[in-house]
Amino acid sequence: LSELQEMYDFIDKNLDKHISKIQEFVRQRSVSPTGEGIHDCASLLKRYFVDLGCHEARIVDDDYISPIVYAKYDAKAEKTLLIYMMYDTMPADEAEGWQVPPFEGKIVEWPPFKKVMMARGVYNTKGPLMAFINVCETIKTVAGELPVNLIFVAEGEEERGSVSLREKFVPTYAEELKQADAAFFPSMQQDATALTPVKGGSEGLIYFELETSGAKWGRGPQEFGIHGSQKLTVDSPAWRHIKMLSTLVADDGNRVLVDGWYDNVSPPGKEDLNLIKEAAKYYDLDAVRQERKVKVFVDGINDAEEYLKHHLFGTCLNLDGIWGGYIGAGPKTLLPHKVTSKHEVRLTARQEVDELVGKIRQHLDTHGYEDVEMRVLQGYSWARANYNSEIARAVIDTYKEFNVRYVLFPPVTGGEFSPAWPACAFSRPPLSLPLTLGGLGHGQRAHAPNEFMVLEGADGKYGRVHGLAECEKSYVSILHRYARESK
Amino acid sequence: LSELQEMYDFIDKNLDKHISKIQEFVRQRSVSPTGEGIHDCASLLKRYFVDLGCHEARIVDDDYISPIVYAKYDAKAEKTLLIYMMYDTMPADEAEGWQVPPFEGKIVEWPPFKKVMMARGVYNTKGPLMAFINVCETIKTVAGELPVNLIFVAEGEEERGSVSLREKFVPTYAEELKQADAAFFPSMQQDATALTPVKGGSEGLIYFELETSGAKWGRGPQEFGIHGSQKLTVDSPAWRHIKMLSTLVADDGNRVLVDGWYDNVSPPGKEDLNLIKEAAKYYDLDAVRQERKVKVFVDGINDAEEYLKHHLFGTCLNLDGIWGGYIGAGPKTLLPHKVTSKHEVRLTARQEVDELVGKIRQHLDTHGYEDVEMRVLQGYSWARANYNSEIARAVIDTYKEFNVRYVLFPPVTGGEFSPAWPACAFSRPPLSLPLTLGGLGHGQRAHAPNEFMVLEGADGKYGRVHGLAECEKSYVSILHRYARESK
Repeated sequence: LSELQEMYDFIDKNLDKHISKIQEFVRQRSVSPTGEGIHDCASLLKRYFVDLGCHEARIVDDDYISPIVYAKYDAKAEKTLLIYMMYDTMPADEAEGWQVPPFEGKIVEWPPFKKVMMARGVYNTKGPLMAFINVCETIKTVAGELPVNLIFVAEGEEERGSVSLREKFVPTYAEELKQADAAFFPSMQQDATALTPVKGGSEGLIYFELETSGAKWGRGPQEFGIHGSQKLTVDSPAWRHIKMLSTLVADDGNRVLVDGWYDNVSPPGKEDLNLIKEAAKYYDLDAVRQERKVKVFVDGINDAEEYLKHHLFGTCLNLDGIWGGYIGAGPKTLLPHKVTSKHEVRLTARQEVDELVGKIRQHLDTHGYEDVEMRVLQGYSWARANYNSEIARAVIDTYKEFNVRYVLFPPVTGGEFSPAWPACAFSRPPLSLPLTLGGLGHGQRAHAPNEFMVLEGADGKYGRVHGLAECEKSYVSILHRYARESK
Repeated sequence: LSELQEMYDFIDKNLDKHISKIQEFVRQRSVSPTGEGIHDCASLLKRYFVDLGCHEARIVDDDYISPIVYAKYDAKAEKTLLIYMMYDTMPADEAEGWQVPPFEGKIVEWPPFKKVMMARGVYNTKGPLMAFINVCETIKTVAGELPVNLIFVAEGEEERGSVSLREKFVPTYAEELKQADAAFFPSMQQDATALTPVKGGSEGLIYFELETSGAKWGRGPQEFGIHGSQKLTVDSPAWRHIKMLSTLVADDGNRVLVDGWYDNVSPPGKEDLNLIKEAAKYYDLDAVRQERKVKVFVDGINDAEEYLKHHLFGTCLNLDGIWGGYIGAGPKTLLPHKVTSKHEVRLTARQEVDELVGKIRQHLDTHGYEDVEMRVLQGYSWARANYNSEIARAVIDTYKEFNVRYVLFPPVTGGEFSPAWPACAFSRPPLSLPLTLGGLGHGQRAHAPNEFMVLEGADGKYGRVHGLAECEKSYVSILHRYARESK
């Protein structure tokens, strides 16, 4: 693959320009929950696809929450790869604050890295997205043409559950999308130790809100919060919310008390256990603790194999946020008329969205909380990966080329290893495409303050934690290897 | 008292001017929890006292949270009355919103009232405060001199618990303050039915925050919220907070489960019960339900006597507000590192602040929540009133003069009838002054959106619900009657 070297050199020479492109892209806000900048970002992305030479590039925005940018690049090649992308991000409103303005693409030192780009969405996943487009430009400039045809599906709704992608876009465009032979999600897969997992599937995710209100309950203040002294004679929807929430989990906050919750949890199979055992060798719990600022894990887990089993085959019910009543500074007496909380469920294989949503509702009803409102904001299924597919082999061979310590993860990855993504939209019918995440490089703090992507790599426990240049080179290699893998 | 008529006429003729003064005062923000406008409001108030002719007017602001405006008016009279005032207000940040800008003093129709002034603090209690100053100006203009000497103590910290007043100002100035023979709190005492309670004491109040954090717990995220998928292996301070809160109250959210909570609750005495029986005759629960938008009361109370017993001799633990994690729009997966809640306790006679604070702390500790932080923001004692005092008799005689249906409330009033106020600062040693709240007029929605004070009265079930003119006239009468009551 000596022809690739020329492209690698080109990337090294043009890295500053490539960094500028990423800065341009993260400066264009695309805040998923509020919609801020979403449409402008979709337009910008469409322009990138047009500039790249896509013969078709459209913003599909029928009645979607956020538009999907859909583009096709015809290289007259034998194979067609569907490139999944997400251009939306979380807000940057964390109370703890950022050390830089979060929408400027500042380049800072972040030991052990001399240069990282710090910005909301730069790691998850506007940085890798733009890096992939940089790579396509590079290949065209150096080699004249791309080695595969590409179908770009870039959604702006990932952080809101990919509803439009799964329920509208894929069914509507299924015939066209089926022209793809496989799907690929360009990302940065190395962790802080330089370990590079191979992943493909996704755990499932349910995100919902619970709300207790006087209006629905028929007791307590009905329309607005009233003076707190009235608690002496008026019931409290706020306390009701607390007592209701308290029925959902055990005292440790870990075991879920919803009836039948664990019925369909599948323990890892023999092959899964082998993969976990292998992966665990490279998994440094101390590094994880340090990175996440966590001292101990649930149930005192202190063994990488156990940790991975929990993450990859576990299920959980999280309390993501709660608010109600007076939440400003100092005292203000108030008897609130409602309280709302946000929750997520991580599904493991064979648990299904409808099943668990139904069980939570049933739990609330049988515990006397029929009046508590449950609003499902997201819900999608798990997906299993197949590491014998051509796209998976292309990714693995690329990792071998760059001499990184890779490890195959159990086919339903989950938790921090592969935060839920809508893999099921591609892996399940009607498309049933093999799919893989891939790419060198490293980032941290998705959904947290000071999110960053590494620009200049550093040595980690298991080798080089690569920066942007090697991330882009790995995409070059993956595309070429995929083109050449025998069908 | 025919000389009073001239003053009443003067008030009627100058009412627009008096309304303008109140507008000027509510436009000057004085938001207690944030401190917004507090110092400017203190300066404005000091100017009013200087303009009135106080021979001494000072802003006392040593290391107080908010300054106290302290002024003395020497009328060379026999008696001296301490006028308690509060110039601070709650914020106007209620999510439900206001129908008018809350700091403009807009005059609107609010059936059955043709004219009310709607503004934050106009009822609680910047309107009555300014009305009282209008009255002093009126008396001086018409009669030449006030009938009593006045000592004004206007605090800007009432909504934050009057700590500086109770713990610093009164002890420091006790000798001077003892020159007063009684204390009076000018306010608007009529309810929506036109019933006019006579009140003097105050329930006690504790306001505190509880906070559960990974840092204090030693489990869960230590420094910042992390990606929600990590709930699979990381403990949740948020769920811990819910489980902890859930131990504090029974399923109904009403009965407090803290050990020994009810030990010192005193049931009403025989005289108290007689006063309650009398008061209950005039107390319309339907009107209360309508005003507060409450359909039913705790334990199905549907009898005015029971209702009053709960309010006047009950105790409660309220959940005033709670927040933590992601509280914006849409889904964002987050495992929060801390959750905070706000709470208030209403104390009935013989429960004491230190006692209950200690019991809550003890409860948390014995339930395994030693790490949960408890921050006491307010705490003050109850105070009993004496309706045989000269100032109480002056108020009662004024109500007779205006032919309103008044009713003596049990001497420790509480709840909505007289939201806790620092009566104990005056009624307990070292001052031990008799004290009474008084004044005709009506307002609603203290601490809630669309707070208002009635400008133009309307007929209520028990007579006239008076507007501003009669409120001011009642202050004129109270001052003159107090001056003439034989010692």
